Amino acid sequence: MSEKRQGLHTIVFPQSPRIIASATIAGPKEGDGNLGHYIDQLVSDPLMGEITPEKAERRLLYQVCNDALTKTSLTEKDISFFIGGDLLNQIIASSYCARDLGIPFLGIYGACSSIVEGLGLGALMIDGQYADTVLVATSSHYHASERQFRSPIELNIQHKASDQWTVTGAAAAVLGSRGEGPKVTKATFGRVLDYGIKRPTDMGAAMAPAATDTLCRHFRDTNTSPGDYDLILTGDLGSIGQKLFSHLIKESGYALGTKHIDIGAAMYKPQQRAGAGGSGCACSALGILGYVIKEMYRGKYRRVLAIATGALFSPLSYQQGDSITGIAHGIVIES
Amino acid sequence: MSEKRQGLHTIVFPQSPRIIASATIAGPKEGDGNLGHYIDQLVSDPLMGEITPEKAERRLLYQVCNDALTKTSLTEKDISFFIGGDLLNQIIASSYCARDLGIPFLGIYGACSSIVEGLGLGALMIDGQYADTVLVATSSHYHASERQFRSPIELNIQHKASDQWTVTGAAAAVLGSRGEGPKVTKATFGRVLDYGIKRPTDMGAAMAPAATDTLCRHFRDTNTSPGDYDLILTGDLGSIGQKLFSHLIKESGYALGTKHIDIGAAMYKPQQRAGAGGSGCACSALGILGYVIKEMYRGKYRRVLAIATGALFSPLSYQQGDSITGIAHGIVIES
Repeated sequence: MSEKRQGLHTIVFPQSPRIIASATIAGPKEGDGNLGHYIDQLVSDPLMGEITPEKAERRLLYQVCNDALTKTSLTEKDISFFIGGDLLNQIIASSYCARDLGIPFLGIYGACSSIVEGLGLGALMIDGQYADTVLVATSSHYHASERQFRSPIELNIQHKASDQWTVTGAAAAVLGSRGEGPKVTKATFGRVLDYGIKRPTDMGAAMAPAATDTLCRHFRDTNTSPGDYDLILTGDLGSIGQKLFSHLIKESGYALGTKHIDIGAAMYKPQQRAGAGGSGCACSALGILGYVIKEMYRGKYRRVLAIATGALFSPLSYQQGDSITGIAHGIVIES
Repeated sequence: MSEKRQGLHTIVFPQSPRIIASATIAGPKEGDGNLGHYIDQLVSDPLMGEITPEKAERRLLYQVCNDALTKTSLTEKDISFFIGGDLLNQIIASSYCARDLGIPFLGIYGACSSIVEGLGLGALMIDGQYADTVLVATSSHYHASERQFRSPIELNIQHKASDQWTVTGAAAAVLGSRGEGPKVTKATFGRVLDYGIKRPTDMGAAMAPAATDTLCRHFRDTNTSPGDYDLILTGDLGSIGQKLFSHLIKESGYALGTKHIDIGAAMYKPQQRAGAGGSGCACSALGILGYVIKEMYRGKYRRVLAIATGALFSPLSYQQGDSITGIAHGIVIES
């Protein structure tokens, strides 16, 4: 087997592509949350002066891409590829951002898991010497997601305790073969699992089996256990999905203990009334490119397994009686 | 520079990953069209016995993936990754197909250019030894696209001459490092270009600049010219977009002559009243994995440059006054 494969499905990056820069941006609610002081730029107006939340999301994404580039000595012209995705139909935030950046564009869709799909693919392109630098970015917006997936916020429909609150924000990383920064050393891409969950207000339950599957496959493939990581981060299971995940992972024979943080459950404070927690492409992205990377630079973590989860469905598939499936992609980041 | 890069943005695959199997499936209108005898399986009922076109599209995609696997000695368990995308919101055809296949899934979105984005990424994963085998597939469905992007067909709204007809069908390829089959030797991923087109009935015009840009960048990067290829295929510009493309490419100093075929313009016969021609993720996919691959096996073509084009927009971005942007991804396939 190639030195770039481990077990059945885990990819190894022997050249250790680096996250040479990252940037994060978010709205006021996220600023007031638990991760507020890890976010580079907090905007006071979630509409960014635009007339629609979709246009605002696009601005957040473009802004954060430029912020990430500004932290390097690179311009758009130096970047080989831009990998981006978001929750909007036909990922329009990412494609308009790609238009404005002018960098060759690979559009991806993994719902809220997109940031890790992108970082994994970007690391692969750099590790394999197919690119010198790759820009990876994702975004989401509460107002845009509510009206696309659920109901316009103007209807003021009561939230359920299991509802998750789409994070308004964006995050970007510049991956490179040279320079300083945390290394992406492995990736385990996820399978789509379906446990028959049918309520879009219950996404954590739909994603927990996928997070468990990817984590267990990663442990088996790499012959590692929770003790090998300083932190195991899951992305946006939320407080309810997190409990299910804990049960499932215990049943699989692993004890994560205090090493596990779910970034969805951790995003907001209880008094912020955000249901089961944060979600959206920006949720895991802020967790990984905000919290994890900054704490790595401070020396708190040296090796982190980050697993971003996504609920794969559309309002139409829900209306047609289909269940909500889940996916989870994992990467290992080392300082 | 790495031996895997040429010029600014073209990727070279020194290990020459192979298309070890491909399969195509389509509906009755496509069967009656010019490519009918290149399509492996024609279904008489575009609804595939399902109650909605979205569920039918999912069945077409799953069927064609299984057909491609059947042509090899491989099963789902032997495939490292499944790369898929489609036009439906949140690419639900691909994600439900991924659930049924059980293969780790990378969701992509490049509108009608998705098949080449997928083949390029899949070839990269195999060339770099990150995977032994990758399944790549895309689908589209006329009924599903009409009601999502334009109007339900039950309204019987008159088509315009510049309208394109979404192909009902799907195509899949198994890429592998070993075995027989045409080789994928290069990929040039596209930039998102915007020429201010605002009518969703005019997608060919929106995509022609991107096709020109990718083709010219490919020629420059690789130091090749039309004479180096037996066929230059563009995917779904349609008859109007094709004319614009011919003008733009001539202005750029290249003469393609009879070497150029646009698969959108070629898909249907004039008496089929399909407006400016075919479109949809299945259009380029049937052209490349049906027509091109079969004619390569027959010896007609030895080196083909296939450029799939996509119009990046959503009904919402159109309603919000945004223009329709275009992208085009290219790969070189050699027998």
